[in-house]
Amino acid sequence: MNTQSCRYKIVVSFDGSGYAGWQWQANGISVQQRIEESIEKIFRVQLRIHGSSRTDTGVHARGLVAHFDLPCRADGSPPMSAEKLPLALNSALPEDIRITLGELVPDTFHARFSATGKQYRYHVWNHRHANPLMRNTVWHVPVDLDLESMRRACLLFPGKRDFRSFACTHDYHIEDTVRTVTRCSLRHAGPLLTFIIEGDGFLYRMVRGMVGTLVQVGKGRLDPESITSILEEKDRQFAGQTAPAHGLVLWEVFY
Amino acid sequence: MNTQSCRYKIVVSFDGSGYAGWQWQANGISVQQRIEESIEKIFRVQLRIHGSSRTDTGVHARGLVAHFDLPCRADGSPPMSAEKLPLALNSALPEDIRITLGELVPDTFHARFSATGKQYRYHVWNHRHANPLMRNTVWHVPVDLDLESMRRACLLFPGKRDFRSFACTHDYHIEDTVRTVTRCSLRHAGPLLTFIIEGDGFLYRMVRGMVGTLVQVGKGRLDPESITSILEEKDRQFAGQTAPAHGLVLWEVFY
Repeated sequence: MNTQSCRYKIVVSFDGSGYAGWQWQANGISVQQRIEESIEKIFRVQLRIHGSSRTDTGVHARGLVAHFDLPCRADGSPPMSAEKLPLALNSALPEDIRITLGELVPDTFHARFSATGKQYRYHVWNHRHANPLMRNTVWHVPVDLDLESMRRACLLFPGKRDFRSFACTHDYHIEDTVRTVTRCSLRHAGPLLTFIIEGDGFLYRMVRGMVGTLVQVGKGRLDPESITSILEEKDRQFAGQTAPAHGLVLWEVFY
Repeated sequence: MNTQSCRYKIVVSFDGSGYAGWQWQANGISVQQRIEESIEKIFRVQLRIHGSSRTDTGVHARGLVAHFDLPCRADGSPPMSAEKLPLALNSALPEDIRITLGELVPDTFHARFSATGKQYRYHVWNHRHANPLMRNTVWHVPVDLDLESMRRACLLFPGKRDFRSFACTHDYHIEDTVRTVTRCSLRHAGPLLTFIIEGDGFLYRMVRGMVGTLVQVGKGRLDPESITSILEEKDRQFAGQTAPAHGLVLWEVFY
């Protein structure tokens, strides 16, 4: 009996508009489910894939990472080359999900636990009127935002801090809410604003809480310096709104 | 009887994915139809709007221009301020069409005949795997393209020339096929290539013919210098393929 298995790492890009997030859900189709179905179709095996992140309904990904094991061939070689894998799975996936990279990894690799950091990007369309070509990927904020204030506020996030005030976490007493944010910056190209947020890990809805608060700063409803005091409160009610899901993209996972 | 009318110019942005182009069609919903319906809903008048351009099925717009006349008020003032007009029409339009600017113009203004030039942009996703987040707005070309060859070829388009070889025109004998292209350039940001093409006017499917030919150059199937000889042939069969509609955006109309 051949019990040896070969572990694949895949990078997944998807438009989250039509999905109930990454993970299997009772109330909707998940991206994970679609990929598992494509593996079943190509390899005739039912298995569970492990993702780097659980994204919410409507959140997108450019580079979510997942891993899974397939039985090796009798000679110990992998059932398919890592290069061919994305093409094979893509042929069985809907257009709004693409595998953009395949890699053979040691069985010590775990998409979630081996990750050392992640980058998220959040897009805001800051124009009086919405942009129909980006309507599923940007948050439309029709009032003028003060970029300089938001940039000053961004600078107050990086560091190892308790991010409890920015997350929607119900398990305050059992969960460690300290995370290290290594980058929080704001680019703009005309009306398109891009927040780039990087860190070693993120709490539930933490990025959306940060962006919602930064937009409040941009509207002049919060001082840039209030970021520091909100962090010190360690209570979600002090931060701004949670930015909508459809502006968020899991951009890259680092290992 | 008040016969005076007030002329409005509007700038229209739309995702063409769901439409049979700009103009009224027997076989599908057009963008023009949707805007006329929104005017009827807001102003209780049935009228015809005049667009700067007839875009094909699936082609998008960032800044198509149209004009229409509404009856003035008894005192000769416009029935609605130009500033308020986009908000009013947008409230009655589907999300994939937005009016981004309204302006009162003299009745000598005509969206089509007053135009002095147009800019089109064409987006190519040059990566082995498609991008799910841009699948309706880029042409996916999975093989390596030589940017330098394409840039050299771009430089051969500008000028006043007979563009017959690049257009799908059936009326060769009656139509003037000389146009002046003022800009043809290629930008890239990672796998995203953007062709920027500007001119005083364009023949039917001319931009898509130019881009399809440039991509053939990028694949090494045509020499950059062949652009000049193709132009001289004045025959569509000598140019490359017509690039697909969904990568094209009417970016701006100049007056």
